[in-house]
Amino acid sequence: MPGNTFGKLFRITTFGESHGKALGVVIDGCPAGLELDLVAVQAELARRKPGQNRLVSPRKEDDSLELMSGVFEGKTTGTPMAFMVVNKDAKSKDYSAIKELFRPGHADFSYHAKYGIRDYRGGGRSSARETIGRVIGGAVCKQLLSSIGVEIKGGVTKIGTVDAKRCVWPQVEENLVRSVDPDVVDAMIAEIEAARKDRDSVGGRLKVLATDVPPGWGEPVFEKLDAVIAAAMMSIPAVKAVEIGAGVDCAEMRGSQMNDLMYPEGFASNNHGGILGGISSGAPIDVTLSIKPTSSLPRELDTIDTSGKPQRISTKGRHDPCVVMRAVPIAEAMLALVLADFWLISEAQRSVREGFSPHSIVDYGLKE
Amino acid sequence: MPGNTFGKLFRITTFGESHGKALGVVIDGCPAGLELDLVAVQAELARRKPGQNRLVSPRKEDDSLELMSGVFEGKTTGTPMAFMVVNKDAKSKDYSAIKELFRPGHADFSYHAKYGIRDYRGGGRSSARETIGRVIGGAVCKQLLSSIGVEIKGGVTKIGTVDAKRCVWPQVEENLVRSVDPDVVDAMIAEIEAARKDRDSVGGRLKVLATDVPPGWGEPVFEKLDAVIAAAMMSIPAVKAVEIGAGVDCAEMRGSQMNDLMYPEGFASNNHGGILGGISSGAPIDVTLSIKPTSSLPRELDTIDTSGKPQRISTKGRHDPCVVMRAVPIAEAMLALVLADFWLISEAQRSVREGFSPHSIVDYGLKE
Amino acid sequence: MPGNTFGKLFRITTFGESHGKALGVVIDGCPAGLELDLVAVQAELARRKPGQNRLVSPRKEDDSLELMSGVFEGKTTGTPMAFMVVNKDAKSKDYSAIKELFRPGHADFSYHAKYGIRDYRGGGRSSARETIGRVIGGAVCKQLLSSIGVEIKGGVTKIGTVDAKRCVWPQVEENLVRSVDPDVVDAMIAEIEAARKDRDSVGGRLKVLATDVPPGWGEPVFEKLDAVIAAAMMSIPAVKAVEIGAGVDCAEMRGSQMNDLMYPEGFASNNHGGILGGISSGAPIDVTLSIKPTSSLPRELDTIDTSGKPQRISTKGRHDPCVVMRAVPIAEAMLALVLADFWLISEAQRSVREGFSPHSIVDYGLKE
Amino acid sequence: MPGNTFGKLFRITTFGESHGKALGVVIDGCPAGLELDLVAVQAELARRKPGQNRLVSPRKEDDSLELMSGVFEGKTTGTPMAFMVVNKDAKSKDYSAIKELFRPGHADFSYHAKYGIRDYRGGGRSSARETIGRVIGGAVCKQLLSSIGVEIKGGVTKIGTVDAKRCVWPQVEENLVRSVDPDVVDAMIAEIEAARKDRDSVGGRLKVLATDVPPGWGEPVFEKLDAVIAAAMMSIPAVKAVEIGAGVDCAEMRGSQMNDLMYPEGFASNNHGGILGGISSGAPIDVTLSIKPTSSLPRELDTIDTSGKPQRISTKGRHDPCVVMRAVPIAEAMLALVLADFWLISEAQRSVREGFSPHSIVDYGLKE
Repeated sequence: MPGNTFGKLFRITTFGESHGKALGVVIDGCPAGLELDLVAVQAELARRKPGQNRLVSPRKEDDSLELMSGVFEGKTTGTPMAFMVVNKDAKSKDYSAIKELFRPGHADFSYHAKYGIRDYRGGGRSSARETIGRVIGGAVCKQLLSSIGVEIKGGVTKIGTVDAKRCVWPQVEENLVRSVDPDVVDAMIAEIEAARKDRDSVGGRLKVLATDVPPGWGEPVFEKLDAVIAAAMMSIPAVKAVEIGAGVDCAEMRGSQMNDLMYPEGFASNNHGGILGGISSGAPIDVTLSIKPTSSLPRELDTIDTSGKPQRISTKGRHDPCVVMRAVPIAEAMLALVLADFWLISEAQRSVREGFSPHSIVDYGLKE
Repeated sequence: MPGNTFGKLFRITTFGESHGKALGVVIDGCPAGLELDLVAVQAELARRKPGQNRLVSPRKEDDSLELMSGVFEGKTTGTPMAFMVVNKDAKSKDYSAIKELFRPGHADFSYHAKYGIRDYRGGGRSSARETIGRVIGGAVCKQLLSSIGVEIKGGVTKIGTVDAKRCVWPQVEENLVRSVDPDVVDAMIAEIEAARKDRDSVGGRLKVLATDVPPGWGEPVFEKLDAVIAAAMMSIPAVKAVEIGAGVDCAEMRGSQMNDLMYPEGFASNNHGGILGGISSGAPIDVTLSIKPTSSLPRELDTIDTSGKPQRISTKGRHDPCVVMRAVPIAEAMLALVLADFWLISEAQRSVREGFSPHSIVDYGLKE
Repeated sequence: MPGNTFGKLFRITTFGESHGKALGVVIDGCPAGLELDLVAVQAELARRKPGQNRLVSPRKEDDSLELMSGVFEGKTTGTPMAFMVVNKDAKSKDYSAIKELFRPGHADFSYHAKYGIRDYRGGGRSSARETIGRVIGGAVCKQLLSSIGVEIKGGVTKIGTVDAKRCVWPQVEENLVRSVDPDVVDAMIAEIEAARKDRDSVGGRLKVLATDVPPGWGEPVFEKLDAVIAAAMMSIPAVKAVEIGAGVDCAEMRGSQMNDLMYPEGFASNNHGGILGGISSGAPIDVTLSIKPTSSLPRELDTIDTSGKPQRISTKGRHDPCVVMRAVPIAEAMLALVLADFWLISEAQRSVREGFSPHSIVDYGLKE
Repeated sequence: MPGNTFGKLFRITTFGESHGKALGVVIDGCPAGLELDLVAVQAELARRKPGQNRLVSPRKEDDSLELMSGVFEGKTTGTPMAFMVVNKDAKSKDYSAIKELFRPGHADFSYHAKYGIRDYRGGGRSSARETIGRVIGGAVCKQLLSSIGVEIKGGVTKIGTVDAKRCVWPQVEENLVRSVDPDVVDAMIAEIEAARKDRDSVGGRLKVLATDVPPGWGEPVFEKLDAVIAAAMMSIPAVKAVEIGAGVDCAEMRGSQMNDLMYPEGFASNNHGGILGGISSGAPIDVTLSIKPTSSLPRELDTIDTSGKPQRISTKGRHDPCVVMRAVPIAEAMLALVLADFWLISEAQRSVREGFSPHSIVDYGLKE
């Protein structure tokens, strides 16, 4: 409840600040016996790290993982896994000038109001660097989920005024902006470059999809699958809207359009985004996020200081003119975390339910 | 975690089905000493009940409350309050024909997949009648919050293709569709009547606002105020999108537009919707929901039955051609529940923090 | 966290006061499809109710159950079950004299300090009448657990200075004090009668046992099976000590005595009480509770009033001179609740773990 | 719920195995602004570490702390603190011989049954070395609590057959066995030496006390202060019984003896152990733990192996013949964790309750 833990049966607790000693995560509840592929976990981190290409923050971090516990002879043991990533390129001097100022669009003022103290170096805990722990946790969940065929993928559908018109998944990771539409990659890049040239930033939208999720995951009425996904996604820095399936477009639709008809071979459409009554339907889970333009701008803006006096501020650090593409692996991680947790929760009920029949009593006994 | 409980320190647990004996809620964690206005709680229920006017379901329920515990001599005692509403106009025979069929757009199939059994009468637990418990809980929270000046209100901003163009709060409860814009009330009503005439339904959008929320509420990083609001709202039946502040529009904005500048007298704008870094900023909390058109349609649609065979279905029960206006008090209730809970959580930290100074040691002693 | 909810996946929330309108419980997380035997639930309530025999409180309550939700055509549906028991023989006038006084040994003072307000009628929420909800919840769990052969039973091992010397389970429910030892029943009854004659009360001890619990239930390190049992038991009114297996006697033992040797046919002894490292071992779960003598005494005692002034008090209500035998069904209920919850939690992990193998992918599909 | 997290508003999550890379803890929910004394935290770790004196395990660990996050310029920031202690003297070769054997009294068999895989090196996660994270968390809580005058202390009251007869607190940390009674120190040491000479081990009992706890902490009915303390204590390795106040002795008492009379100057006695109805009364919180003799014995014992065949086993590692005195700082830590958490929870309600009065509206505004 203090807020740095996510999940019920599969649970992560993250820690660390942008310019602190290290960031990390404790993963608790991962079932024992999973052969953990650490290279794949590291690869997910590489997808979100700064300095990947010319469009993102030039901060130099290799974000290399260290695993402290919970794995024995290559397999998970059911005990907590602690992962750590040491900060290497923290340039705290960049930030001392803004110690007493509240950067517009950032969490500086609200943290100050809440805590009365604030690690102002690079946003401290409110920096998106916090998401390292999420991506590590999500990477473990992806491995877990892929054991039953659930796959998760994401891509950018809009940068500024440029919209994707079609979805071609295989090429998404190949283009600099992770656009789902290869035809608009250049236009999206141009949008970002234009914003940077104007000493400004630009927002966008991304889609995350989970396929082959079995029907029956999710817990009515307050822990509906879509409700928990909404929380997971809205907790990602810069997200201002979460849509499931048809999303905001449902407002203009008639019921006869919106209702996805059912046939023996499956749903005819997916306006419901794979979730009905808060429970997975077997159709792909389809989530769309709107990401605000980066708040840090290399131009002067009006603000106030901690004593309430008017000031001017310009952020000089190393920032991204657009964070939408870096948010893709983070959103995938959050979806993976939600689904792994609901898989566990669903199995509990299903397994006990089937246990009502005396034949299914589990033999936990020793093996000869 | 089984899903029928919401909140951490202020917590509700709801129960009941559309055509069961009763629905209700247990409210746990309400601080002692609140003079509970039961008439005001009943009034909130009246705002969501069916049969209010010609645009909504004709089901006849007075939804009268019974309080079983937790209040003594008119005041809350800090112990759980149990409220109950008995179902009176449950017409179960309406539903027996669809016992083996999955209604498109409804939770029938996903409940069947999850539980293997289903109370098919009026949607059972997946009926929006479930929200009675939420509205009762929210009504108590509103009373709590108003003690420090926090007020919550909501109104409809869109029905089908008709958009509100301005916001005039005082008249919202006076018009049949709870439109925030008095100029489009007739057009909105016409949109609903047209859908009904077509044996169809129509969706829409609504806005909820909380004013005078103190800065500092919300818990980074996973229990951010906006994350918990997103979950709360997405858990309401028929909601497909949740937006905070600028919401989906942020995607096309530049940072220089999106950033709300700060001045000694407050924020110049409210694109952030009252939440920065997951913590309230003191600006109004501004949430928008998109509501899908009612799934129950009095026309034949393709579907399957529980053995997977193709069938046709037409819903004959008493349904709303549009539920957007009835969702307003429910959305307000959910926002009130979230805020009351975060008020408690925030006070815990603030009060202990101030307790570091030896002068603030609480004297719990007896009064002479 | 406000404290009236117990359990994680199988969860109860209780409400109600001794002299309020009703008491009850919402049971959330019970797997769907259980054929619920309501007569058996009512029978458990009968085991704890007052007025059973001449040794307990003469309050006349039939404690008859009403079920409001969650069961359809005789089976649980996976949605919350709400049960209610209306208070019939509440004699509030008995208590008005002590409105301003703190009864020694009772929760009057601490409730007053915590809440600043107090339902003083019969102890309000702090009355043992609160345990009705626990017993109902436990009765449902017993039905669940017996589907895999887990059985729970309890009996009294000590009343005042009279100790049971042997354990004969079949006769426990036949004697007035639920003694596990038929030879000391008369001596135990005499102990209680003597206390009553002295206008005093007497304490005792009871044992609860769960047999055929599969090995592997419990979650290290903070949610160990014994830790959660300890909380469950210590939450029962009047309990002052919880022991597992050898309990307090382990302090004088050598390791060579305490260690239970393992053989192919099982453990040679059960000093560990069925729990090793916080996880069930397959041996019987063995728990002992020490119950303090009833605090309400029909004799004058020194105390203070709400303004801190010295006073004398004598409790005139209808009270039990000994509550140990009435605590037996309550302790069984709490053990059942803990075990049902851990069964669900354990199944989640076990089932997913086995899911790593591609053959075990669950087919949730429709049945032809 | 996976079990490695403790607390609600003040919460720790621990990780690490006896012979893994490191152990540690993430502390979440510590209020901001606490001047953290890291030397004091390290000192608490020194109290529990092995190799302190000739009576305990000779394993050489300096257990030096590393703090990775959550503190800025010497003060807590309200964000999670991650602490780590690297294992230095892990001798895994000592354990390979017992890879396939279940050590009697240990968690080997139950972990095997639960997880199907087990880090057999030194007990892995089930080693008492796991308690490092608890002691760190407790040390932070002690600092928090001492800001309002709450102090926590513990001492040994029994080793084997030797009982303390009086309580002299100031000398407890000066004697090798942390005996509360200076007169029996030599007898206690002799008891341990005798057990060691017999290649055996010995149990005992310890007491923990919290003084100046304000009345009003604890949440009826399932999160009573004593219930949560019972869970906290029973979760410590080797604990088999938890007693509050008079504890097991209450069974033989009459109500007239057990009831602690109240006078204007306070309670006349403390049989209730500082807790009434699950809420602190203002009297010292008084908890007693019974600790079983160490399970690891340097003598041959009967057991089975993972295929269920009979075997003989003798534990050759570096073990304590008695762990009672090393459990003292762990028990203190757990009590501190429970109390800090309830302080926060209590403040939430108290502060909001007082907020009902319009005068107490918090001004979170900027300071001129």
